[in-house]
Amino acid sequence: MSDSVQLQPDPTLAEKIVNLAKRRGFVFPSAEIYGGFRSTYDYGPLGVLMLRNVKNQWWKSMVQLRDDVVGLDAAILSPPAIWAASGHLETFSDPMVDCRSCKERWRADQIGDTCPNCGSADLTEARAFHLMFKTHAGPVENDGSVAYLRPETAQGMFTNFLNVATTTRKKPPFGIAQVGKSFRNEITPGNFVFRTREFEQMELEFFVPPAEAQQWFDYWVTTRHEWYLDLGIRPEQLLLRPHDPEELSHYSAGTTDIEFMFPWGWGELEGIANRTDYDLKAHSAASGEKLEYFDQAANERYTPYVIEPAAGATRAMMAFLLSAYDEDEIGGEARTVLRLDWRLAPYQVAVLPLSKKEELEPTAREVLRLLQPHFQCDYDATQSIGKRYRRQDEIGTPWCVTVDFDSLEDRAVTVRDRDSTEQVRVPIAELLSNLIGRTTPR
Amino acid sequence: MSDSVQLQPDPTLAEKIVNLAKRRGFVFPSAEIYGGFRSTYDYGPLGVLMLRNVKNQWWKSMVQLRDDVVGLDAAILSPPAIWAASGHLETFSDPMVDCRSCKERWRADQIGDTCPNCGSADLTEARAFHLMFKTHAGPVENDGSVAYLRPETAQGMFTNFLNVATTTRKKPPFGIAQVGKSFRNEITPGNFVFRTREFEQMELEFFVPPAEAQQWFDYWVTTRHEWYLDLGIRPEQLLLRPHDPEELSHYSAGTTDIEFMFPWGWGELEGIANRTDYDLKAHSAASGEKLEYFDQAANERYTPYVIEPAAGATRAMMAFLLSAYDEDEIGGEARTVLRLDWRLAPYQVAVLPLSKKEELEPTAREVLRLLQPHFQCDYDATQSIGKRYRRQDEIGTPWCVTVDFDSLEDRAVTVRDRDSTEQVRVPIAELLSNLIGRTTPR
Repeated sequence: MSDSVQLQPDPTLAEKIVNLAKRRGFVFPSAEIYGGFRSTYDYGPLGVLMLRNVKNQWWKSMVQLRDDVVGLDAAILSPPAIWAASGHLETFSDPMVDCRSCKERWRADQIGDTCPNCGSADLTEARAFHLMFKTHAGPVENDGSVAYLRPETAQGMFTNFLNVATTTRKKPPFGIAQVGKSFRNEITPGNFVFRTREFEQMELEFFVPPAEAQQWFDYWVTTRHEWYLDLGIRPEQLLLRPHDPEELSHYSAGTTDIEFMFPWGWGELEGIANRTDYDLKAHSAASGEKLEYFDQAANERYTPYVIEPAAGATRAMMAFLLSAYDEDEIGGEARTVLRLDWRLAPYQVAVLPLSKKEELEPTAREVLRLLQPHFQCDYDATQSIGKRYRRQDEIGTPWCVTVDFDSLEDRAVTVRDRDSTEQVRVPIAELLSNLIGRTTPR
Repeated sequence: MSDSVQLQPDPTLAEKIVNLAKRRGFVFPSAEIYGGFRSTYDYGPLGVLMLRNVKNQWWKSMVQLRDDVVGLDAAILSPPAIWAASGHLETFSDPMVDCRSCKERWRADQIGDTCPNCGSADLTEARAFHLMFKTHAGPVENDGSVAYLRPETAQGMFTNFLNVATTTRKKPPFGIAQVGKSFRNEITPGNFVFRTREFEQMELEFFVPPAEAQQWFDYWVTTRHEWYLDLGIRPEQLLLRPHDPEELSHYSAGTTDIEFMFPWGWGELEGIANRTDYDLKAHSAASGEKLEYFDQAANERYTPYVIEPAAGATRAMMAFLLSAYDEDEIGGEARTVLRLDWRLAPYQVAVLPLSKKEELEPTAREVLRLLQPHFQCDYDATQSIGKRYRRQDEIGTPWCVTVDFDSLEDRAVTVRDRDSTEQVRVPIAELLSNLIGRTTPR
């Protein structure tokens, strides 16, 4: 993928990323030793670091750096009353068809007139398939013990609206932010981590006076778009797509998706929706609690509108990986490099003793201990230094610090930059400030 | 709770903490507007910050500051094959009895001979009640689509052992660490967030040569004990309790619990278990994959033993809250104060303009913006400054920064310390370094 070419879907890139993700420990198929479990993926040693970085960057920008947003961590298991009020029990389904020939099941809106498995056109009529996972909580398994795995984190913010507003004394416009797992029993999961039955969301519910809804909607579309750009996705890889009226969710007066050019085409990264007062009113009606705000200055009671930027953490991670993937040449040798922003890279620094020789280890470990409180560091003493640089390039490590035999004399190390491959000699005494200086936002 | 008194259970403390947790926004009952959902709790604006801090401190000490541990984030939904091999399908149950009089169900080992609800002694024989939550994944609801919510994060580390060892090229002794939700369908949840059906674990599986198992077991008992002490729990509040042989889990050759004096008595915070080679061998036998390590130097293939420090994040948070709770007097006035370590406090800094007067706001917000990239900050312009100090004391904020009318002239602010209540004047230009200086570990 290169800037000079008109952006097109690139199926070979998908294969490269899936391969790299498995080979380097970003993403593994779940339960692989048991033949896999189509529903989910496991995030390996590098994936968990990168996914944490994505979520932490979201949290920092949405909660830590603002004083008009507070956090929440609501439960995944939840009683049917919530999903009855939200409309999910009634409407949260996809149209499903069976192939009468091979017995496979498909999402009706994702296939044509023939079965993708066997090619038969003998398909059943489409019928609604519910997407919520159902279980039972408590020692009695009956209708009264039914519980659902939440299909979105949003409802926890609505049901806790009064608790949060009261304890924090926040006034609209203010938001509640949440990062956490959600579950949807997709008929056909696919496209690697793009569509999985278990996934992680980063959602903000931003409560505003109704008259300000449109301006805040516009604000959040812009702000969220800029977040992806700031973390390294290129402008031409992103698209803002307003939903057509017939495409809108049952709660929405307007939705704009932030789409990314995935290897198979444009796909949703995040949706910003104007949920109006639908949810707070629905829960007010169902629970009998008035989920309203009393504006003392105006002596007026009203139900806030909600602007919701809802992002997928795992999709975002995949987009950052795809966007960062590059192949170039160093000294005539082909190189694969992930040009990840340092804030997202699994490791910010790799500490590499030049050889396995024992006399290098104490100094290399001293350098490691110096950096570990400030950076997530890799430590690698295997193979040739050239191979180790390639390995760090391929997993996106911005800086390699090499301890060589001169280091024992001059108390200095070599710092190598991933993108420029430039190497400079830095005294150990100045190493921490040198590296911190490199993290200054561009 | 005071150091000079012999440590005893203190039921009134439970009430105080539950009350404070609800009133200040640490913990809310889930689905409260629908009459509650006994299984779970929601973490409010302060609780989510503190819980993040607890988990991040664990991650920092277990992953970031070590080079012999890597992370993982495996899926919650998992196929029966994993739980058949692990032994959970067969053995993970509690003995349950029914009261024939009032029809309530109880955990047989937690009640006496009479029903705690109605006092009847007419109880059924105990029978096994399975603790895993069951659901169905995929569009067909039959035996082949059964999935379980994991009751522990540990198995994800075992099933991914080869993937992790291969991609990271780590050699025993090395560990895999994971933080995440687990689910157990407890018959009788209770004691606030101590026993809930949805909870969050922080688990390490540390793989070692069998001959080194005992020394690593001892190492991890000591290391984990010190973690709680370092973050502010007092030595007399903790107990190391080795399990009796008949109490050991089916996989364990030895377990020591780190117990905390909860308001109702000693309770488990964390268990350190020697799981031997039970899990890797069980998954090897069931999957046909050899989950072994080949030691090239010794030319020997073996199944590593596993030492597992398994902690509860939500329990740890509750213990830190209880341990930090104090009541004292300031200038003859009663005060409630959470003496939380700054690394755990929801907010590290509160920025407080002395009054609501408009002219203070620009400078107060300038100070806020200066500190936000480095600290989680509260901003509060309501009520009298005395009331706001009390409020910050009660939620454990270590430092308050007050912007007053002099600040507009002298470009300085007042920094107040929570514990000593000492106030010093600090130039805004030196504020960041002053506060960072206060975070230096004691």
